[in-house]
Amino acid sequence: MKKLINDPQDVVAESVEGFGLAHADLVTVHLDPTFVVRAGGRVPGKVGLVSGGGSGHEPLHAGFVGVGMLDAAVPGAVFTSPTPDQIAPAIAAVDAGAGVLTIVKNYTGDVLNFETAAELADADGTTVRQVLVNDDVAVEDSLYTAGRRGVAGTVAVEKIAGAAAERGDDLDAVAAVAQRVVDNVRTMGLALTACTVPHVGRPSFDLADDEIEIGIGIHGEPGRHRVGLEPADVLTEKLLTPVADDLGLARGDRVLLLVNGMGGTPTSELYVVYRRARALLSERGVEVTRSLVGNYVTSLEMQGASVTVLRLDDELTALWDAPVRTAALRW
Amino acid sequence: MKKLINDPQDVVAESVEGFGLAHADLVTVHLDPTFVVRAGGRVPGKVGLVSGGGSGHEPLHAGFVGVGMLDAAVPGAVFTSPTPDQIAPAIAAVDAGAGVLTIVKNYTGDVLNFETAAELADADGTTVRQVLVNDDVAVEDSLYTAGRRGVAGTVAVEKIAGAAAERGDDLDAVAAVAQRVVDNVRTMGLALTACTVPHVGRPSFDLADDEIEIGIGIHGEPGRHRVGLEPADVLTEKLLTPVADDLGLARGDRVLLLVNGMGGTPTSELYVVYRRARALLSERGVEVTRSLVGNYVTSLEMQGASVTVLRLDDELTALWDAPVRTAALRW
Repeated sequence: MKKLINDPQDVVAESVEGFGLAHADLVTVHLDPTFVVRAGGRVPGKVGLVSGGGSGHEPLHAGFVGVGMLDAAVPGAVFTSPTPDQIAPAIAAVDAGAGVLTIVKNYTGDVLNFETAAELADADGTTVRQVLVNDDVAVEDSLYTAGRRGVAGTVAVEKIAGAAAERGDDLDAVAAVAQRVVDNVRTMGLALTACTVPHVGRPSFDLADDEIEIGIGIHGEPGRHRVGLEPADVLTEKLLTPVADDLGLARGDRVLLLVNGMGGTPTSELYVVYRRARALLSERGVEVTRSLVGNYVTSLEMQGASVTVLRLDDELTALWDAPVRTAALRW
Repeated sequence: MKKLINDPQDVVAESVEGFGLAHADLVTVHLDPTFVVRAGGRVPGKVGLVSGGGSGHEPLHAGFVGVGMLDAAVPGAVFTSPTPDQIAPAIAAVDAGAGVLTIVKNYTGDVLNFETAAELADADGTTVRQVLVNDDVAVEDSLYTAGRRGVAGTVAVEKIAGAAAERGDDLDAVAAVAQRVVDNVRTMGLALTACTVPHVGRPSFDLADDEIEIGIGIHGEPGRHRVGLEPADVLTEKLLTPVADDLGLARGDRVLLLVNGMGGTPTSELYVVYRRARALLSERGVEVTRSLVGNYVTSLEMQGASVTVLRLDDELTALWDAPVRTAALRW
């Protein structure tokens, strides 16, 4: 195992500490238990937004803490849910009197631990609502999930809910708009290579030199099927078609197109995928009005990409466009 | 070779085309010859800034075209200099009457082709000045270079020169501040894995499972020496120490610290490196007042990282902080 780490047990703590040092203008890091909050403390009267999950998907979630997006992120061990004892203090730290919305990717451990933390917070007088992200169309149920997995669509949920909270929407309204994003966003990904969890020390799965896994999960969970080495245009169609079909995209729809790298793929290849996905949407009469291309929800050093489509309306577009100031997303 | 591409001969054109579609608000793409210019056309009276070089280092350079940074980027084939016939029209496209500064990484092919292009432009009445970036302290002379190579420090040169041009500095002043960045920036990198140029189809070099190359170039050129698998803290010291020594950093200096990923390294690992580099600078009494962590000057899917230090003063800090609006750098 070749990695730029020290003791595998320390990688999350050391990485988060470095993150806090590099972005002290944006975030404050708490180390025991580990969570990251927006710099400057609570914003009185604003709904607090908390997300989190296993580490290894950076910049998700800590990279999205800041003005216009998350108030706190709670990183677990690599590919492992954070504990309720970590999540509850993060919720408390961002409760500014208007309640807290937790944004949880649909994995059994995350759902359970965020719910337990919400009960703890509730007992302390904080109103907590939760939205579950389950945008991955590849599989129903999987290794770590009852129902669909939450993957790259999470970025859109966090950005848009963050903008709603920032403009002063109340908890019900922020939860409603977050749910509306969930209802309108779909993703599917593929992997060219596996990834290695530091404390495991060997690749999460085997993929032959001439195999590509279609429908991969962000922890290397099995997808739909394996194919041989095919051109990017063919592979992109295998991602975009199920996404567009599941969303029921219709001629005249306007969408956000997110091409997400899994961590080890060159940026240039992501734009090759973007080019084809956009052409396929155009053939369906769907207009791409907003775009995002880059590494946003990764799987360590995995090579691969996912395609996410979010159906937009005027409000979602305005919330997407609203100012954001985080380590990984800023405009 | 596993890549998300179609025909290897088309990867640059298709990627640049996708880039232009995704960022039409920021850039306009010319496809024959290929170059990328800032959207909205020439800014009358502003010095034009042009950079370029072989592709495969994305987001460099096209990702830095936009307000407050480059006016044009000229991508060659992967790891191959763009031709004078490509560069000259890019220079002409951004000449707004105040002359053009070209920012060239110090590789023999790039230097030659940018100089030829400057002569062509000069014959057409455009005043062109050039600044050479040679921040890599790893080696004097190398496979493609007489003198030091230009690597991740290029980002700082482009950002700061871009800010100077944007505020209305004349050509001499923009060239002078660019040169001042070059004089105060140093970099050294390492590789955990090689990378594969699409039209070659096999890795650029061999690196055993238990070897790390210290002082690697961004094309996989040999560095100083190979070491075994060592902790990130030890490896980081092997990068930071020669950088700091070469810069002659002194107690009380203020610096920008850039930890750059080579394309295939997880973000979390870059922050582990950042944490250690920062501690080492602190031990020397050097204050990190600005930071950048991420994939900015890459080598396709290579796993590895580089450490860049730029000695700051008030003016360089203000120019670094000035607004920038590009695909890869925005604040």
